[in-house]
Amino acid sequence: MKKVLLASTSTLYGGGYLEYLLPTLKKHFENVNTLLFIPYARPSGISHEEYTMKVGEAFSKININVRGLHEFENPEKAIQEAEAIFTGGGNTFLLVSELYNNNLMDVLKKVINDGTPYLGTSAGSNIGGKTMNTTNDMPIILPKSFDTLGILNFNLNPHYLDPLEGSTHMGETRETRINEFHKQSSIPVLGLREGSWLEIYDNNVIIRGELTARLFRQNEFPVEMSPGENLNFI
Amino acid sequence: MKKVLLASTSTLYGGGYLEYLLPTLKKHFENVNTLLFIPYARPSGISHEEYTMKVGEAFSKININVRGLHEFENPEKAIQEAEAIFTGGGNTFLLVSELYNNNLMDVLKKVINDGTPYLGTSAGSNIGGKTMNTTNDMPIILPKSFDTLGILNFNLNPHYLDPLEGSTHMGETRETRINEFHKQSSIPVLGLREGSWLEIYDNNVIIRGELTARLFRQNEFPVEMSPGENLNFI
Repeated sequence: MKKVLLASTSTLYGGGYLEYLLPTLKKHFENVNTLLFIPYARPSGISHEEYTMKVGEAFSKININVRGLHEFENPEKAIQEAEAIFTGGGNTFLLVSELYNNNLMDVLKKVINDGTPYLGTSAGSNIGGKTMNTTNDMPIILPKSFDTLGILNFNLNPHYLDPLEGSTHMGETRETRINEFHKQSSIPVLGLREGSWLEIYDNNVIIRGELTARLFRQNEFPVEMSPGENLNFI
Repeated sequence: MKKVLLASTSTLYGGGYLEYLLPTLKKHFENVNTLLFIPYARPSGISHEEYTMKVGEAFSKININVRGLHEFENPEKAIQEAEAIFTGGGNTFLLVSELYNNNLMDVLKKVINDGTPYLGTSAGSNIGGKTMNTTNDMPIILPKSFDTLGILNFNLNPHYLDPLEGSTHMGETRETRINEFHKQSSIPVLGLREGSWLEIYDNNVIIRGELTARLFRQNEFPVEMSPGENLNFI
């Protein structure tokens, strides 16, 4: 029943916003006239209006109209009635705070599980995991919970970065951070590199794009999973 | 009355743990026989015991004994009676969670303000700011609050990194993240590069080390502050 895409990033280096995904989105959102956009993550702090305009421009290329969730008086009803939904990237703490403040986490989960086509990029993908514990974002605001939609049986780490060879910086690598998480939790984490996305149709969870994704499980060595592999075993 | 050092990092590339700070620490902790170490941040998830041993080794070079806070039945009393205190780096979310869980945030703030010599590195410096909203760490656990010690009138961003020239990675730069914070809060943020530390003696807040530090204020251009400058105007 589920029809979900969760992408590591909205934008590839040198490309336009959502550009690399457009052929995929055309099929994913087939027969959709109007997409509901959740602009809460506000990348670089841009306004809901600005963000919705940017998304509208991208989707106009595949003839889909976009309306921002902030335009609706009753956002819960807007989600329930949406033909399709897209949550954009930005700050995951802000996104999750706003979803809880507006009491929308449960209804969003329900409609996605019931089959409303969904797209997430970056922070909007992060919330597809069980919790937001493995976001890369700065905790600019405290949400009431780190629990998220749980569309996946595991967590995501979008914009996954391999350790920089020869780096002299002493801050933690991404892998170190994820290992620290696994001292606190047994939830598996998928490091999704820029250009990769997950396609969750019914119960299949397929890695798409050209790169491998790195799967971290508590007390196990991380493994590289190839495009086309199905993560429904997790 | 205050006698505080807040360092960006414990370790410089190619150096030993706390090595670059030892001459400074020798003076800072003059006449201290036993240092109380707060190991809660658990870098890479190491145990409190392992972490305390590592710190003990470093301080043995300047003839200071180290005891871990986890060794005490009554940690509040241990903090009240400590000759000097050091909070090590690791994960700020875990550190702040544990401080709140053990009801130690207030007592720690009180003894530092009353003059107990204090050292923080990385996560242990982060908590010297007003809030932990500008940590770089992964939110592996949800603390009950992001409010921290407020030894400083502003927040820190340790391990501050300048944007990488020519990077093709599309994740947010540190500066973008801090700007996102300033859409939510007016608390100034100091980006402290590795090798820099703040010396807070009485009401002076001096930048030490050889590098400049980057000061971000809401709705203003960031500015570079030089070593030796006093940030007591913030």
